[in-house]
Amino acid sequence: MSTTATEEQIVSVITSTELLQHWQGHRSLTRKVIAAFPEKEFFEYSIGTMRPFAAMVQELLAIAVPGIKQIVGGEAEELKEHIEEANSKANILSLWDKATDDINRLWAQISNERFRETILAFGQYEGTVWSSIFYFIDNEIHHRAQGYVYLRSLGIEPPPFWER
Amino acid sequence: MSTTATEEQIVSVITSTELLQHWQGHRSLTRKVIAAFPEKEFFEYSIGTMRPFAAMVQELLAIAVPGIKQIVGGEAEELKEHIEEANSKANILSLWDKATDDINRLWAQISNERFRETILAFGQYEGTVWSSIFYFIDNEIHHRAQGYVYLRSLGIEPPPFWER
Repeated sequence: MSTTATEEQIVSVITSTELLQHWQGHRSLTRKVIAAFPEKEFFEYSIGTMRPFAAMVQELLAIAVPGIKQIVGGEAEELKEHIEEANSKANILSLWDKATDDINRLWAQISNERFRETILAFGQYEGTVWSSIFYFIDNEIHHRAQGYVYLRSLGIEPPPFWER
Repeated sequence: MSTTATEEQIVSVITSTELLQHWQGHRSLTRKVIAAFPEKEFFEYSIGTMRPFAAMVQELLAIAVPGIKQIVGGEAEELKEHIEEANSKANILSLWDKATDDINRLWAQISNERFRETILAFGQYEGTVWSSIFYFIDNEIHHRAQGYVYLRSLGIEPPPFWER
């Protein structure tokens, strides 16, 4: 189901390429936050009843490439937040880098019209393609900021927020 | 200075109205996070060497309306992160609601072409109008998520992230 383009859309607020760069800029910062954690604390440290940062990062990995795969035209996959190989910081950073390449490759297959179509992301969350992608990015900023607090409470200086 | 519209922009990823709704959805969630804090902890509680949530919220207030005012065509103002009247949770919630109305009113004066022009936000940060607004939103998500950790560490359940 697609919504009709209106007069308002003739000059775009942001292009597809800019949205990709915006997300990859955030993903580059998230990578630096992962790298800033000591190995043990990455997997074990948390505040309140929250998850360790490694578990949040697995959620981000579970969303990004599978989410874009579905947008490109694949079937909706179930959200799998536990990733077998994600058992060390080095492995997670390597999964992160692979996802960076996969996102770039898949993104090229998203037509401009596709952003305004409606999908059921992961078979459960209805929204337009653009709002789904914004959710992926916002959710990453949200969890990464929680990683910032973990680092601060461990006495570790996190990378500056504006460094992408 | 404006960049030229390209073929890619003929179908917009997101319209101006959608971007406003997206931001106001986030602002509505941030309001709920402010409301969830006990008065004393809102102004005094923090983790590590971080600021209390009230100070972060003052930063968000200092960015939103002054930032959009400049985009609409006003002069760049200096970033003033201390707001005299922001001395109680009730006053801050009332400043928040006033900002909500101000943003809606000012937004109507932003032309579509304006999003692609370059500004020096607050006299110091160079970028396109769209990237400046994205920064305002991302910065709000970032600090609000830190408020989530404060609430969790106080044993208070924050509002769900997807509730806008």
